[in-house]
Formats: sequence, C-alpha cells, structure tokens
Amino acid sequence: MVLNTSYIMKIENIDLSSYPNSSKVYVEGTLPGVKVGMRKIHQYPTVRIEDGKRVEYPNEDITVYDTSGPYTDPNIEIDINKGLSRERLQWTDSRGDTEILSDITSSYGRQRRDDKSLDAIRFPVFHRPRRAKEGHRVTQLHYARKGIVTPEMEYVAIRENLDNQERGIPTYITPEFVRDEIASGRAIIASNINHPEAEPMVIGRAFSVKLNTNIGNSALSSGIEEEVAKAMWSCYWGGDTIMDLSTGDNIHETREWIIRNCPVPMGTVPIYQALEKVNGKVKDLTWEIYRDTLIEQCEQGVDYFTIHAGVLREHADLVKERLTGCVSRGGSIMTQWCTIHNQESFLYTHFDEICEILNKYDVAVSLGDGMRPGSIHDANDRAQFLELEVLGKLTEKAWEHDVQVIIEGPGHVPMHKIKENMDKQIVTCHEAPFYTLGPLTTDLAPGYDHITSAIGAANIASMGTAMICYVTPKEHLSLPNKEDVRQGVITYKIAAHAADLAKGFPGAQVRDDALSKARYEFRWKDQFNLSFDPDRAKQYYMEARREAPDADDRFCTMCGPNFCAMRISQSLDEKCDR
Amino acid sequence: MVLNTSYIMKIENIDLSSYPNSSKVYVEGTLPGVKVGMRKIHQYPTVRIEDGKRVEYPNEDITVYDTSGPYTDPNIEIDINKGLSRERLQWTDSRGDTEILSDITSSYGRQRRDDKSLDAIRFPVFHRPRRAKEGHRVTQLHYARKGIVTPEMEYVAIRENLDNQERGIPTYITPEFVRDEIASGRAIIASNINHPEAEPMVIGRAFSVKLNTNIGNSALSSGIEEEVAKAMWSCYWGGDTIMDLSTGDNIHETREWIIRNCPVPMGTVPIYQALEKVNGKVKDLTWEIYRDTLIEQCEQGVDYFTIHAGVLREHADLVKERLTGCVSRGGSIMTQWCTIHNQESFLYTHFDEICEILNKYDVAVSLGDGMRPGSIHDANDRAQFLELEVLGKLTEKAWEHDVQVIIEGPGHVPMHKIKENMDKQIVTCHEAPFYTLGPLTTDLAPGYDHITSAIGAANIASMGTAMICYVTPKEHLSLPNKEDVRQGVITYKIAAHAADLAKGFPGAQVRDDALSKARYEFRWKDQFNLSFDPDRAKQYYMEARREAPDADDRFCTMCGPNFCAMRISQSLDEKCDR
Repeated sequence: MVLNTSYIMKIENIDLSSYPNSSKVYVEGTLPGVKVGMRKIHQYPTVRIEDGKRVEYPNEDITVYDTSGPYTDPNIEIDINKGLSRERLQWTDSRGDTEILSDITSSYGRQRRDDKSLDAIRFPVFHRPRRAKEGHRVTQLHYARKGIVTPEMEYVAIRENLDNQERGIPTYITPEFVRDEIASGRAIIASNINHPEAEPMVIGRAFSVKLNTNIGNSALSSGIEEEVAKAMWSCYWGGDTIMDLSTGDNIHETREWIIRNCPVPMGTVPIYQALEKVNGKVKDLTWEIYRDTLIEQCEQGVDYFTIHAGVLREHADLVKERLTGCVSRGGSIMTQWCTIHNQESFLYTHFDEICEILNKYDVAVSLGDGMRPGSIHDANDRAQFLELEVLGKLTEKAWEHDVQVIIEGPGHVPMHKIKENMDKQIVTCHEAPFYTLGPLTTDLAPGYDHITSAIGAANIASMGTAMICYVTPKEHLSLPNKEDVRQGVITYKIAAHAADLAKGFPGAQVRDDALSKARYEFRWKDQFNLSFDPDRAKQYYMEARREAPDADDRFCTMCGPNFCAMRISQSLDEKCDR
Repeated sequence: MVLNTSYIMKIENIDLSSYPNSSKVYVEGTLPGVKVGMRKIHQYPTVRIEDGKRVEYPNEDITVYDTSGPYTDPNIEIDINKGLSRERLQWTDSRGDTEILSDITSSYGRQRRDDKSLDAIRFPVFHRPRRAKEGHRVTQLHYARKGIVTPEMEYVAIRENLDNQERGIPTYITPEFVRDEIASGRAIIASNINHPEAEPMVIGRAFSVKLNTNIGNSALSSGIEEEVAKAMWSCYWGGDTIMDLSTGDNIHETREWIIRNCPVPMGTVPIYQALEKVNGKVKDLTWEIYRDTLIEQCEQGVDYFTIHAGVLREHADLVKERLTGCVSRGGSIMTQWCTIHNQESFLYTHFDEICEILNKYDVAVSLGDGMRPGSIHDANDRAQFLELEVLGKLTEKAWEHDVQVIIEGPGHVPMHKIKENMDKQIVTCHEAPFYTLGPLTTDLAPGYDHITSAIGAANIASMGTAMICYVTPKEHLSLPNKEDVRQGVITYKIAAHAADLAKGFPGAQVRDDALSKARYEFRWKDQFNLSFDPDRAKQYYMEARREAPDADDRFCTMCGPNFCAMRISQSLDEKCDR
C-alpha cells in the first residue's frame, strides 16, 4: 500500500510489507461487483543436480485467506484520513430497501458532531447514515430466508474456497450452501449497511474457524492513533473481526476512525459507552441512554454488538457461590444494575425493541456470556449454564426479528470440561455459531495466557466453535500493545488452523504441505514466506546464521550440518552422494 | 543459593531469585535419608473493611512441586566447580550390590581424562564410577519386581503428593503403589547410580505429567558455560528432566559439568557422540564405538538413553513415500547406516547386550521414534506405526533384562490424529510410559512452535502421555538460547498442568484456586508469586502501572477502574459500597 500521512492522523511503526514474495489477487464472482481478494504466495523452484546438471522444478503458488483488505494491495493508495473505499454500498443500493438519512438519529451522536472542541480529533469525512426503509428488514438472515443469494453470500463462498476447485479439492461450500447456513441460523455474515468498507466474511461451524481481536483504549492508556494502528495491525496479521472495547476518552471519535479504515467487521459492547456517558455510575444507566448508544453505533457502522441480555436479576445470587464472581465487564455491570434497582435487566426486558433496531442496519447480536467462569474453579457451573439457557431463548427471539446471532462462550475451562460447553451450546442455542474467549485451560500463567487459552481455543474450535476471541500475553495484567496484538493474532491463527485441520476443512492442509516440502528441501525463504509470521521466522534463523556465515544453507544451527536429519534423509534419496 | 564462582567456571546472568515470598521445605519419609524438597509459596492476608475496621484473614501457604533442587535453598552453598551434594549415594551403598571401579571402563573416557590439553575445561573433581557387582542388576525395576520399596520409591510418592494429605485430598499414590507401577513397567524412576546428585522423580501416567527440556551445543554454537547455565535455568523454571543433545565439541566434558550440577535426571542420545567420534561419517560408525560410548556415559551418570533401536533396514524404503522423510536425527543416522552397509541396525542386533550394560548402572532406555512424522502430511503413517510395533517388542526384551523403558512419540500430528497415537502406544508397548515431542498440530508457524506443539502436548498428555518434551520458539530455525529455554519450559509447564487438571490428578487444582482467589481479591503480589513465571507477570503489570502511579490497585490497565468486572463483582459482595 501507499500510505498517505499528510493529514492529521499519522500511523507510525506499522510495517505492512512483511509478507514477501506474495501478490494480491482477486477472484470474481457471477454477481455484480463480487471480487474477492486473496494472497498468493509464490515459491522458488526446487533445485536438483541431475547428471551433473542443475535442474529446476517449479513449485506452485499457494493461495491463502487474506484479511488485510486494501492494505496489502500495492495498486491502492491508502489515505487513512479519507478511509477505505466503500465497495459494499453498490449492493445495498441495488437492493433498494434502504434510505439515506438526512441527519444522525442519535442525540449523542449529533452532540459530538456539533462539538467544535472535537474537531482536532474528528475523522475528516462525514457519511450520512443509512437505514432500512420503513417496514423493511435488511439483514442477511432476512434475505437468506427469502431464498435470495446475496452478493455477500457469493463473496464468502468464494473466499472460503480459495483455489480448491483448481486443485481438484472437493468442497461443499457453494453460494446456495452459504444461504442455507445463514437461513438456518448456523452462520452469519456480520455486515452493517453503514460499514461498506468491510469485506464480507462468514462465521459458522461449516466454515473455516475465525478469530477476533480485541483492541480499544481504557481510562488509563492509549490514544486514537495507537488504536487505529492496532486495528490495521490486527487485519494485517490475520484477525477476521475486531472488537473495539474502548472504555476511555473519545470512544465515539476513536470508533469512527477505526471503522472508516477497517476492512473487517467490527464489534463493540455498547454498554461500555453507555456507562461512560453516565460517568461510570452503574445506577445511572437507563434504557434510553443505552438505546441512543445502540443507534449511534448502528449508524457509525458497527457490525455486531455484544449484548449481555442473558444476565438476569435472579442470577446475582448464583455469583456469590463462585470463587471469582462475575468476570465479564458487561455481565458485572448489569448484575450490579439489577441489584441496585431491584429490577430485571433492561437489556432483557427491551430485547424485542433492540432487535427491531438491529434489523434496520443489519447489525448482528453477539449474546454475551456475562456469567462466564473466570477461573478453573467456576467452570461449567450453574450460573454459567443457566445463563446459556436464557441465551438460547433470546436466540429464538432475535431470529423472529431476522437478526443474526452468535453466542459468546467461556472463559476459563479445564480441558476435560470443554466438550460439555460445546455440546450444550449447540443444543441449547439451536446451532447458532459459538464464539469463545479461549478458554484458558489453567489459571497459573499470567503473562502467558495467549498460550493457556490457545490450547482451549484449538480444542473447542475443533469441536465446532465458529470463532475464537484472541487472548494476548497481557491478559489479566494490562492493555495489550501493538506487539501483543501480533502475538495474540498469530497464536490464534495457530489455534484456528489446528482446528481447521482437525475438522478436515477442505484445502486446509495445502499450505502445511507446501511449507513442509519447502522445509525438507531447505528452501528457507519459502518456509518463512509460507508461515504465519515470516518476519519472526526469518529473524530467528538469521540471528543464528550470522554466526556461521560461511556454512552452506542445508541445515540450521539447531543441529549443525552433520546432525541435520533432513539433510541425511535427503542424501538417501540422492544415493548417499553426501 | 549462594553461588561460588571463584573457580574456573562462571555462570553469569542467571537470576535464581525470582520466586519471591517462597521457602524451601523438606518432607521426611520413613526410610533413611528420604527428605523431599518442595517449595512453599506464602500468601498475604485478605484484607476486608468490616464495621469501618481493617480485618485481616490469613491465606494458606501453597506447596508446589520443585525441580530446582539445592539451587533454591538459601542454606546450601553452591559451588558449581565442586558439583551438587551426592545425596543418593547412601541408598546405593546401603543396598550393597554395587562396587566402586578402580578406573573408568571406557577407553575413550580414559583417553579424555589423560589428555592434558583438556585440563582447562575439565570438571575439577573426579568421582570413581560405580557398577553393579558381577551377577547383580541394580535397576528400580529389578527391586520393584522383588517387592522392595526403595527409598527412591518412597521419595517420589511423597513428592507427587505434596501436602495433599494435610489438605484432606484423597490420593492413591503410596510407596507401594509406586513400586507396583514400576514393577508393571507403567512407570520409571530414571536414576543412574553414578548420578547421585539427582533427586528421584517418577515418569508414568498415574503420576503428574513431566516435561523434558533439550539443551546442548551444536557444531556451530554454544560453549560449556552456556550449556550449564541452560541446565540450571531449566531446573529452575520447572524442567523435570534434561536431555543433553550436544553434537559439537567437547561433548564429554560438557556433560560432566552438567551432570555434576544437575538435580534432575539427564538423558542423552549416545549415537550423537558416537558419530562425533568418527568425525560425522555415518559409514564409520561401529557397534564397538557405540558400546564404548554407552559405557562412558553410564559411568558419567546419564540417567536415560534415547536409542533408536526400532529403525530397521526394511524401514528405509517406507521413508521414501513421505513428504519430509526421516526427521529424527538418530533415526536418519541409523537409516543411512543400514543403507550404506546393507545390514540390520547394530542397535537392534545388539539390543540384549545394550540392556545388560544398562542394568549394571540403572540407566533407563527411551526407545527413540526414528520414524516420527516431521509434517502433518506424514502423521500416523505406515513407517511410524510399523516402528512402534518394533518398539513394543524391544520393550518386552528390555523388561526381560530388568531395564526400565519409556517410549518416544511424535512429532507433527494434527489434533484429530493424536488419540490414535496414544491408543496404539498403550496397547503396542504394553503400557510403558509414553514420552512425546509435542506433537505440533500445524506446520505453519516456525518461530511459534512452542505454541503449535503445546496444543498437541496438552492433548496427548491429558490422554495419558507421561512426559512431554518441550519445543522452543526456535525449533526448526536455530539452537535455543537461555530465554528460549525459559519460554519453552513455561509453555510446557502450562501444557503439563492443563493435562493434570484434565486427568483430575489429586491436588492439581489447589494452586489454580489460590491464584484465582488472589486475583479476585486484587492481591497482585500473590497472583504473581503463585504463577509459573512471577517475573514476567509482574513485569507486564508494572510496565503499565508506571503510567498510572497514583491510581489504587484494585484494577489493571486492561479495563481501567470503572470497567474492572472483578471490582464491580466484589462491590456486590460488599453491598455496593463502591
């Protein structure tokens, strides 16, 4: 990409050129405007000496799923002060069921817009929001149920298949299959009509496992630049969706910057901003403030909302039996609200109204697990599973309103209790996609919780969880920085891919086989380029090689030349000429 | 510890004081000299404000398994130029079935000893080796079969139980149970009579999951100091055994330094040193050189040998069907040897003789998996499982000689193929303990293979694998350094502990619960101290807190004070006084 940083926003120290020897390619669909970006990794030839002559055997390109959007297209000039191209608008327009509003609906949104003191941090371009015309629902679920294969559905079908067809790899994923999965509620395409910068992607257990990354500032740290940089960074390394969990200052403006520059769906937890609006005082939260926040965010382009509507007044007592109480921020806020007011949660009592807002913009609901266990001790307890039952009922209700649904899951769960989570979720929530935070398989490793949780995430994803929410090394300790985001994303790429292999997802093993072939043939650059983090692999190798610059390259310093098994094993193929 | 570095060896940059607020305690057994070191982690009290007064509720000490030996006992002066105290000698002596040899048996060993040019790097103290008296076998398996409960068996029983009895946690592990597990071959205590510095530990699926760390130089890097430092470092962070896989210069002297300072069992792959002795020329390897190497190492005190005796001449062709051939160094060496000489492997044809050497010193055999898969593509193939059958037969043979046996396993295996490995190993190898390298669950992440493999290791260990061999971030790329060793050990502590929880190992959850309680009560220091890597956790927390020095400590920068779920959840317990 060509980064234009001459405007007010400057993004520094983001190197988006570390996927060497790769090209951006586009695969076109049959519907208008369907053009799916993928990354092709080129390989060097295999070189053999035959009859004393050097013979080259070409190695095929490997096509991989690409979440980086325009950022890795050298032909696209990026100006983060203008935002990404709004490609998806054409599809929304062509359906003719939306209208462009004359003004922002949210009173808070208008107030921020009119506040001159915010000009210095405001995203420079204003797009008037869209909404479904009166009497219309504009969700992918609505279209799917009507039997309509949308461009979004064709897009994700192409995206999931990569070049499987050219390779002769059988796959079940057709646009019609996607439509059917969405119609049944088993998959979603989170695609707010006000976030046309995002490329469609699908979340469902029949598809490749997706990963979400959490970013966002807190009261103590991180500015807008840093959050936008984290978002770009997340997309670059492979994050499929981003959640902006900001709880500090200028949430509205931070989010606008991120969404306008975000090629993947973005989620939020609206109760966080609602609470900021009442200065952190839980008792002052009201349905009216929350409702205005929903609309504000719907019109900015948030693609899915985490809503902890399953936390009920009666659950408050169950938490007291726990070792670590309620560790969900949204869950604890609502529990406190119910207790203070001695009333049922307004998220629960107004759920139908919430759904009627969401289906006007096609915002999906991610039913939050306010009662997720925060320790091994509390895993799979009554509070957790009672809430899951509520989430199942809310799923049916959302579906009645044609709102797309995913279900959030734990948390901290020891390995032997993971399967019960998956089994119960599928039945209780009628196969709505499961979206889990790890789970962490032990509490003993703060500083390494990307790893404790990747073990759980790989396991639960292999059992059918559709999306896993990353955990960074800083979990439980502090807000992640950019390098933590990278660590978290790569760790979760590993978990998701390990699960894809275990599920036998079509074509998943192509890249593993290519990398292993490159490794065996000492094509080091190909080994790096095919890996999830070419930079890191190359760095480790080169650090050691600098100490042995004269040696040939058919080994690494781990074993040295005489003890390289691959070198010895190869020499057998070559009739022991070494 | 007090480190005396006034002699020739200096170990720098090893900080062995990062387990704060901990004490070394010793639990005595009933047999003479049985005194088991453990670490007790002290906790700060829980503070509550009740009726306006500050009330302290004490939190109990948490006792944890401790592999660091004398290094963490402040009352013991460590002089690495003298080596650790040789505690286990008393038990060997009291059995009266060994003799002190007048000289080193190995001709190579004598040659090194007499080489004046090596004086500068030689370990300063010479201990005459011991061996079983003629007609005796001195293995723990031999004693166990005779019905003898050795001090080593009582030691490991106490070690596995920690303070479970005081806590009222039921456990099945008695000294007699240990004896029975060893007699049946389901567990081993690797304890060469010439390594009396090592504290007994048990490897078997009825016990806590153990982890091994590989260290050792290669032709291209790393000196003696660095390898000794890595060994100390490994023990400190929690490595249960160490394998010295050195393949470079001065293997004999490096090993002596490590063994004399090593409080855990040490393993090697003797074929590596044998190959160094013939200058890396596989065709020059002979049984005589290998045999002399075994004896050399038996008399130095190596506790277990990886022997790739299951790689047979007929297997060479199977490898050709693979994507990544043979990736075991020992396996590839023996395959090449068989091919060059068109003979059966001398490790296989001389296996009885090998066992008769091993049972004179109580060196256990770790039957190497020379045919382990080196890629997802090659997992669970014919080459791998045919070799496993050979290993099963060799297990029976070793047991006939009273030699203790463990079986090495893969490697690279996708998650859905892991269980077959465990199931087949248990049946084919008659329940001999399984000891796996990972397995790595995808090939796509060089630079992060500690993580790809921790996923596999946690899974296979939860199914019954007794010991997992760590993988560091440098796997496939270069030799690990000290920081990589730490990363690898902590990652594998996580995998092993996640498996212990999943197995329901008695008492495993005590520490998780204590840490989670500390976390919930914002006892940050206790949270750090109870974790696997207190240093790292504290560092991450403090880096962020420095930016908010004035805030109270009842939250972290991840969420900030208003959004800390635990803070909110606690305030419910406290009748919403916050």
